[in-house]
Amino acid sequence: MEQAPNLLMILNFESSPVLQDSSSPYLLGPGTPEQRFELITRRLAEVLNGDTIQAILSEGKRNPKCYWGTAPTGRPHLGYLVPLTKIGDFLRAGVEVTVLLADVHAFLDNLKAPLNLVEHRTEYYKNIIRTVFGSLGIPTDKLTFVTGSSYQLTRDYNLDCYRLAATVTEHDAKKAGAEVVKQVESPLLSGLLYPGLQALDEEYLGVDFQFGGIDQRKIFTFAELYLPRLGYAKRAHLMNAMVPGLGGGKMSASDPNSKIDLLETPEVVKKKIKAAFCEEGNIEENGVLSFVGAVLLPISQLRKDHIAEAVAAGKPTDDLPKPFVGDGAPAEAVFSIMRNPKWGGEPSHYASFETLQQDFKDLKLHPGDLKTAVVDAINSILKPIREAYESSKEWQEVERKAYPPAVSDKPQKKKKEKVYHPPPPGRGKNPKQSSAEQAPSSEAAVDNQIPAPAASL
Amino acid sequence: MEQAPNLLMILNFESSPVLQDSSSPYLLGPGTPEQRFELITRRLAEVLNGDTIQAILSEGKRNPKCYWGTAPTGRPHLGYLVPLTKIGDFLRAGVEVTVLLADVHAFLDNLKAPLNLVEHRTEYYKNIIRTVFGSLGIPTDKLTFVTGSSYQLTRDYNLDCYRLAATVTEHDAKKAGAEVVKQVESPLLSGLLYPGLQALDEEYLGVDFQFGGIDQRKIFTFAELYLPRLGYAKRAHLMNAMVPGLGGGKMSASDPNSKIDLLETPEVVKKKIKAAFCEEGNIEENGVLSFVGAVLLPISQLRKDHIAEAVAAGKPTDDLPKPFVGDGAPAEAVFSIMRNPKWGGEPSHYASFETLQQDFKDLKLHPGDLKTAVVDAINSILKPIREAYESSKEWQEVERKAYPPAVSDKPQKKKKEKVYHPPPPGRGKNPKQSSAEQAPSSEAAVDNQIPAPAASL
Repeated sequence: MEQAPNLLMILNFESSPVLQDSSSPYLLGPGTPEQRFELITRRLAEVLNGDTIQAILSEGKRNPKCYWGTAPTGRPHLGYLVPLTKIGDFLRAGVEVTVLLADVHAFLDNLKAPLNLVEHRTEYYKNIIRTVFGSLGIPTDKLTFVTGSSYQLTRDYNLDCYRLAATVTEHDAKKAGAEVVKQVESPLLSGLLYPGLQALDEEYLGVDFQFGGIDQRKIFTFAELYLPRLGYAKRAHLMNAMVPGLGGGKMSASDPNSKIDLLETPEVVKKKIKAAFCEEGNIEENGVLSFVGAVLLPISQLRKDHIAEAVAAGKPTDDLPKPFVGDGAPAEAVFSIMRNPKWGGEPSHYASFETLQQDFKDLKLHPGDLKTAVVDAINSILKPIREAYESSKEWQEVERKAYPPAVSDKPQKKKKEKVYHPPPPGRGKNPKQSSAEQAPSSEAAVDNQIPAPAASL
Repeated sequence: MEQAPNLLMILNFESSPVLQDSSSPYLLGPGTPEQRFELITRRLAEVLNGDTIQAILSEGKRNPKCYWGTAPTGRPHLGYLVPLTKIGDFLRAGVEVTVLLADVHAFLDNLKAPLNLVEHRTEYYKNIIRTVFGSLGIPTDKLTFVTGSSYQLTRDYNLDCYRLAATVTEHDAKKAGAEVVKQVESPLLSGLLYPGLQALDEEYLGVDFQFGGIDQRKIFTFAELYLPRLGYAKRAHLMNAMVPGLGGGKMSASDPNSKIDLLETPEVVKKKIKAAFCEEGNIEENGVLSFVGAVLLPISQLRKDHIAEAVAAGKPTDDLPKPFVGDGAPAEAVFSIMRNPKWGGEPSHYASFETLQQDFKDLKLHPGDLKTAVVDAINSILKPIREAYESSKEWQEVERKAYPPAVSDKPQKKKKEKVYHPPPPGRGKNPKQSSAEQAPSSEAAVDNQIPAPAASL
């Protein structure tokens, strides 16, 4: 391993760590405090201490602030659309959102993001996340990017880390990380530090609430318990439901088809979705159907809202992204299945996910037709992202440096050499999984964007 | 608990954390590399990787560097003379010694060193340690004081802490701290971080070896294992034997007589030593006898050497501290028992600890006579320390701020209220001991000067 001074020089890449994008093509639509709170919390699996957010909205003196964290390791894939779509709700409701690019966490796991790549990966993540918001038609003037290294190595932060370490028991730290930290026989200390660091981020990013997947629940309740013990405020915590991977109900780390890159070509998207597990009538274990509910319908609704707002404001709508509805759909529709009339098919229009889900369950909606609609919707989302990438020499250069071919080949080589040892019965989740396998190769836990610290901290 | 920003202002007390005392009245006596190595390692319980020190001495291009750490919590007591006397050997052998005043560790345990007192206690420790060296006649021109906060909260150090946390397993950290970290049912995370922090200190203080008590052995071997994994050098580790408390072979946290303050009056010293456990013929559990071997004889030898050097250099010896030998002692004597001729007693002179120990075992040396000699020797050591304190308004002011009466009364009050719950069988060492009892109130573990992190980190 290299010497720290070199590491620090490399990590110290950003003299001004906070970037702001103020080019919002859309107006914020705050509405009443109640409407804003409804927008902030809709579709969530759970809300803790929502009353503190309501209080800020009711008082009306400032916008609520929130953070969502992601470690710039592997290339962001389609699963990132799940949290980003929800963040779209926050931004529309006037929430000031901070995206934490946890570069320190990323670099600390050399296998996931080797040191010499972290800076480039951080830049790559910024590029793609910003572009995704643009493609989703989400205003980003209240969006801020912060890199972890800009404050996680400061005197104040680290003194607080020590204070926390002298306050938190091993037992509580282990319990907090139980769902996101790999439960191996001999865990690393980083896994125990992790919940505390994530708690401190709330204070140091100055937010009112943290957003993440429901798998973060224990980490969030840990933060609610321990921040006040350091004299800091207890934050609200908003949690997305977990969305299964596109590859099916079960995770499949070795299946490259379960992961769709955000820069993927339309052909590859089509091929991968066609190959995805999507059993007729099965609405329980169905990554494709879940993706429609968690990503496509909300985005379609968002796009409808934007168009309606533009119309009301007397602005042109030609350049605005279109909702995923076909011609002749009723006004309330948010998703259409456009069957080929050549085969006697007729279009179905859905105004809610529940009706679409019901049709699928009742075998009125065939997996093939659903997949075709999903492929089209995904490609309509990815198109502007790909175009932005292809028109930006800088981004292409960043991508080349962030994910050089030699490095991305490495884990595959390793896998072939690996001998699988079955875990002892009753031992954690994936206790014998090697670090090389820990890369987020499935969308099954898409909201857990800061990867498990046993591997990443 | 107070807010971090305040803490930081208070901790940031020292713009120039490194102090150097270059007023050495004595010449260094380096001798040959072999002689210097013998001086560095004599009387130690164990030496790990001594060959690296030998190599530096043989090469002769620079002096070896060493560090010894102490957390500025309770008032330094007589037990501190054990490591300081050994440090005297290092300094005489030309070793550049750093005394780490671990203020961050000290403050992190509010019970041991409340926040508003840490700065003053650090200053108090500096004053007393410097003065002790002066009283022992030990040159301090190669002695450096460093406060932990001057580097333990920097970007580099903390990045290395994270790197280490991502390298060290919980199991290894726990094993390393087993003897110095309290083995309670639900330990604090700080206890697990502790061995890693102590290892990093070696790198950040730039030393060739660390010195401590033999109870530090597992922490030291941990450092030898893990520092190279971060790309840093493996250091040598020199360990003092453990010396039992003056109160007797067993520790006695509640016995104030087992602790003699370095500013104690001669009367109180006499009273406490007279009360100390020192059973006739018992050389196994005998804190008084051990103290003679670990502190008084080495100091006496040191003083003899200084006088001999001064004589050889044609310098006056009147101002030099005298060895603990009586009139009429042979040249080789380092300790005398001067019995009162009124009771028919005759003086005994000892050239080695072994002969004195043998006499005690054979009942030729009575505890009462030993104690009288010990009281005189201790008072001769403490006299210049007390005088320095009494002649320094600044020091008195520092002492008043560092140990205000209200605070030192507190633990006593608490003790009275405390109900003792016996620990479950087989559970660690002192698992139910409260923080209030964790103050170093016995000399039994005098070399473990950085207190157990469960309480102090």
